[in-house]
Amino acid sequence: MNGTARIRVAHLGLGPIGRELVKALLDADHLELVGAADINPQMAGKSLRELVDHPKAGGVRVCSSAEELLEDAAPALVTQTTGSRLDQIYASLAGVVDAGVSLVSTAEELLYPWLRHAQLAEQLHQRAVQRGSRVLGTGINPGFVMDLLPLVLCQPCLDVRRVRAVRVVDVSTRRGQLQVKVGAGLSADEFRARVSAGRLGHVGLLESAALLAHKLGWTLESLEETIEPVLADRPMKTEHVAVTPGLVAGVHQVARGRTDDGRELLLDLTMTLGAADPHDGVQIDGRPPVEVRVPGGYAGDAATVATVVNAIPRLPRMPAGLWTVADLPVSTVPNLWGR
Amino acid sequence: MNGTARIRVAHLGLGPIGRELVKALLDADHLELVGAADINPQMAGKSLRELVDHPKAGGVRVCSSAEELLEDAAPALVTQTTGSRLDQIYASLAGVVDAGVSLVSTAEELLYPWLRHAQLAEQLHQRAVQRGSRVLGTGINPGFVMDLLPLVLCQPCLDVRRVRAVRVVDVSTRRGQLQVKVGAGLSADEFRARVSAGRLGHVGLLESAALLAHKLGWTLESLEETIEPVLADRPMKTEHVAVTPGLVAGVHQVARGRTDDGRELLLDLTMTLGAADPHDGVQIDGRPPVEVRVPGGYAGDAATVATVVNAIPRLPRMPAGLWTVADLPVSTVPNLWGR
Repeated sequence: MNGTARIRVAHLGLGPIGRELVKALLDADHLELVGAADINPQMAGKSLRELVDHPKAGGVRVCSSAEELLEDAAPALVTQTTGSRLDQIYASLAGVVDAGVSLVSTAEELLYPWLRHAQLAEQLHQRAVQRGSRVLGTGINPGFVMDLLPLVLCQPCLDVRRVRAVRVVDVSTRRGQLQVKVGAGLSADEFRARVSAGRLGHVGLLESAALLAHKLGWTLESLEETIEPVLADRPMKTEHVAVTPGLVAGVHQVARGRTDDGRELLLDLTMTLGAADPHDGVQIDGRPPVEVRVPGGYAGDAATVATVVNAIPRLPRMPAGLWTVADLPVSTVPNLWGR
Repeated sequence: MNGTARIRVAHLGLGPIGRELVKALLDADHLELVGAADINPQMAGKSLRELVDHPKAGGVRVCSSAEELLEDAAPALVTQTTGSRLDQIYASLAGVVDAGVSLVSTAEELLYPWLRHAQLAEQLHQRAVQRGSRVLGTGINPGFVMDLLPLVLCQPCLDVRRVRAVRVVDVSTRRGQLQVKVGAGLSADEFRARVSAGRLGHVGLLESAALLAHKLGWTLESLEETIEPVLADRPMKTEHVAVTPGLVAGVHQVARGRTDDGRELLLDLTMTLGAADPHDGVQIDGRPPVEVRVPGGYAGDAATVATVVNAIPRLPRMPAGLWTVADLPVSTVPNLWGR
C-alpha cells in the first residue's frame, strides 16, 4: 500500500485460528503469503487450497516444519498459532528469530513472557536483537480486551487506584474446541482435577495482569488467580457437548493483583455455555473515573486474527527485540511520522 | 520514578485548564514543575501559589512570556494551553522548539496540523528535527474519544468500512466558558452568524477525522462539517446562562469523511445544556463489528489534563519531530522494552 513493497509473510500452525488467519493474510493488500506449515503429517505436502477455502490459497504448498518453511518460503515475517505455553514452542520461535525473521504469535504466554519464563524471554530478546528480528505476542485475550484496552483507557486518567476488566463469553456461540476447553460437561470434581493438573483454564489472564501492571508503572506485591467451575442450572446442548443441571457449564477465572500502596487490578473472566449478557467491560477508579462497555464483547477468533494482521505493518517500525502490544504505536500505517 | 531523573516541565497558559494542569504537574512524582507563564499582565511576577491552590506552587514565579519562561526555568519540556488555532500560537511554539525544548500542547489544531496548516506543520517538524525536540498535540477531544480511541478499537477488526464516533456532553455540568462556547442563550440567527464568522463551534472535529483517516490508511475524497444549533424545548438556567424555549441550548456538530471506495467516517458531537444521556460511543463496521459505550462520557477538563501528564514520559522515546497521539506507544512507563 502507498507504494511500499508487500511484506512476505509465512504462517505456522493450521488449526482453526491458523486457517482463519491464513485467509486474512491472503486478503491483505499489504501482505504476501509466501508459505504455510503444520507439523501434522496429514497436512504436509498438500496444497494450502485443500485446507483453506480461499481462491488465492492454491499457489502455496504446506511445509511440515518451521525449518522447512523458512528455507522454502524465505519470509520476512512468520505468524504462528501453534500453542499457548512458551516453553513448548520456544525451539520453533528461536529458529525463526535466528533466521533473522520477525514473528507475530498468538501464544498466550508470549504476551508477557517475563512473568513465567524470564530466562527464555531474555534469551529470545537477545537473539532477536542480534539477528535483527522483532517478536510480538498478540491476540484478543490476552492481547487486547483485558490488557491493552484498559491501558489505553487509563491514558485520560490520573491517580489510577483500581482497574477492573470483565469479560463474559457465551461459549455456545463459539468453536467446540473452546466449549471443551472451559470444561463444559464435566463434573465439578473432574473440573477441579483438571485445573490442578494444569489442563483446564484460560491461559493468559496472569499475563494480562502482569503486562497491565508493568505498563501502568505498578509493582505488584501479590498476583493471584482463581479458577472455579460455573455449574449449569438447566440442561444445555450444543453440537459438541450436552450438559445437565449440576454439571459444569464453564469457567469463572479471576486474576487479582495488588500493590503495597493499595492499588488493585482485577481481571474477571467468565466463559460458559449460555452466559447471560456477554460483554467486555472496563472500570477505572481514577481522575476522572471511567466505565466502558462493549455489548456482546469482541468476537474471539475473528478479533484475534485481526490483531495479528494489524500488528504486522507496525513491527518494522520497532527496533529489533521482543516487544509487547503496549510498546507498539497505535497506527497501522507504515509511515514514520504524523503526516 | 524507577530511579530515572524527573523531567523538568514548565507550563504556558494559566486559564482554567492550565491551572488544573499545573496542579497535576505538581502532583506527578516523575515530573518537576520548574516554571509557569501567562501573557496576562495581571499574572506576571506573582507567585504561582496566588493563582493555583496547591501546597507546592509556592516556589514558582509566573513569567510573562514563553521567552522569559524558557530563559528563567530552563525546562526540558513545555506544556501549553493557550489557544486552539495553530497560526495564532505558532510563534510561541516555534520559540520553544528552537530552544531545543519539547512541547505538549492542547491546541486543537495541533492534533493534526497537516489538515489546515500543512506548511506551518512542515516547518515546525523541521525545526523540531533540527533542534532535537519533540512536539505533540493531545487532549480528550480532540485527542482521544473521537480519534485515538476509535483507532485503537479498530485494531481487532479487519475490513473496516465505517467508523462512527458519538459524543454527547451536558454542558450544564461543565465550565461556564464551555456553556458560552456552544452558543447557549443565543438566538438561532445569532448562532449561525457566529458560526459563519468562525467564532462558534468546536475546533478539532475535522482534525480528529483527518487523523483517524490517515492512521487507518484511508484517503478521504471528501471531508465535510456541519454545525447546527440545538434549540431549547424548555427553560434552562445555570450559574452562567439562562435559556428560554426556542433559544439555543447548544451545538450539534458533525464531521463526515468518505473514501472513493465507499468507506465512511462519521464523528457526531452534541454539546448542549441538559443533554439527555451524555456518553461517548464508537461503532465500527468491520470483521468483527464492534460497539463501545462510555456511559456519562469522559469528563473533559480532568481527562484533558491527564492526557497531557501521561504523554510527557512517552515523548522522550520518540525521535525528534512533530508527532500525533497515534504515533506514541501506549505505555506511559519510560523503559524502552517489554520487561
